Amino acid sequence: MDKTLILRAVSEVGELLGLEGDTLATAESCTGGLLSSTLTDVSGSSQWFQGGVVAYANEVKRDLLGVPEDVLDAHGAVSEEVVKIMAQGVQKAIGANVSVAVSGVAGPTGGTPDKPVGTVWMAWCINGTVVRTKLNQFEGSRDEVKEQTVMHAVNGLMAILR
Amino acid sequence: MDKTLILRAVSEVGELLGLEGDTLATAESCTGGLLSSTLTDVSGSSQWFQGGVVAYANEVKRDLLGVPEDVLDAHGAVSEEVVKIMAQGVQKAIGANVSVAVSGVAGPTGGTPDKPVGTVWMAWCINGTVVRTKLNQFEGSRDEVKEQTVMHAVNGLMAILR
Repeated sequence: MDKTLILRAVSEVGELLGLEGDTLATAESCTGGLLSSTLTDVSGSSQWFQGGVVAYANEVKRDLLGVPEDVLDAHGAVSEEVVKIMAQGVQKAIGANVSVAVSGVAGPTGGTPDKPVGTVWMAWCINGTVVRTKLNQFEGSRDEVKEQTVMHAVNGLMAILR
Repeated sequence: MDKTLILRAVSEVGELLGLEGDTLATAESCTGGLLSSTLTDVSGSSQWFQGGVVAYANEVKRDLLGVPEDVLDAHGAVSEEVVKIMAQGVQKAIGANVSVAVSGVAGPTGGTPDKPVGTVWMAWCINGTVVRTKLNQFEGSRDEVKEQTVMHAVNGLMAILR
């Protein structure tokens, strides 16, 4: 991950959020907190970053983010259906009006023919409404999948806020 | 942060947790998710890492982790009193029986004479009981304060689990 590039993107996200007094929350599975950590690498991020939920276990997706058991069973944790509810759920849990959720297979294990390593779903949400979703198929190591996910999540925030 | 060193420590924490079927949750303020991200850099961490709460804003410490407003007012977010309740609160919120909480001043701004940049409180909790707290005074940049906090948090987990 090009640290200078990502921090510049995060700073721009912060400025865009600041324009309208928006606040941001994150819901992360495969990135395990790397997204929120990157967002808070910028000094002053406490002005707009409220917090996040690292929902690694499915029980956390269900209990803290409100993803119903039957949706997890029917579509799996790495699915558009689940990230949409994670993005909406984290706004309620954290108390923010902009959010992004990510769920994927970071690898090196856990891949399936349908969802190989590097499969990552993302959803972005403003004021309770999902405004964008994206399916990515990343390549590389566990670290590289996490880093590419963070970069795309931040770029997506810029896109929905501009 | 020496990546090899920290990943070896995380692997040992995972092995120790696995011995008793324990599960881990994290509550982070100043590290912003870097602790949970580091814990999940190890493949197989989903066997024992349940999830975490990044409680950047005080409202999140209050609403998701159960830190009372009057405790935050009386002692400030960077205090032994607050990290103890964060560590206990995240076990309930996430559903895990081992936890660690960190709250500090990552800098470069936000320091005070009483709590200069680099001041970090940590608490470790097993089965609802706080078993260890620590006050650290780290030096260096924002990134360096975050990284030293992560290293100490993981080392503390090893100490309480051994």
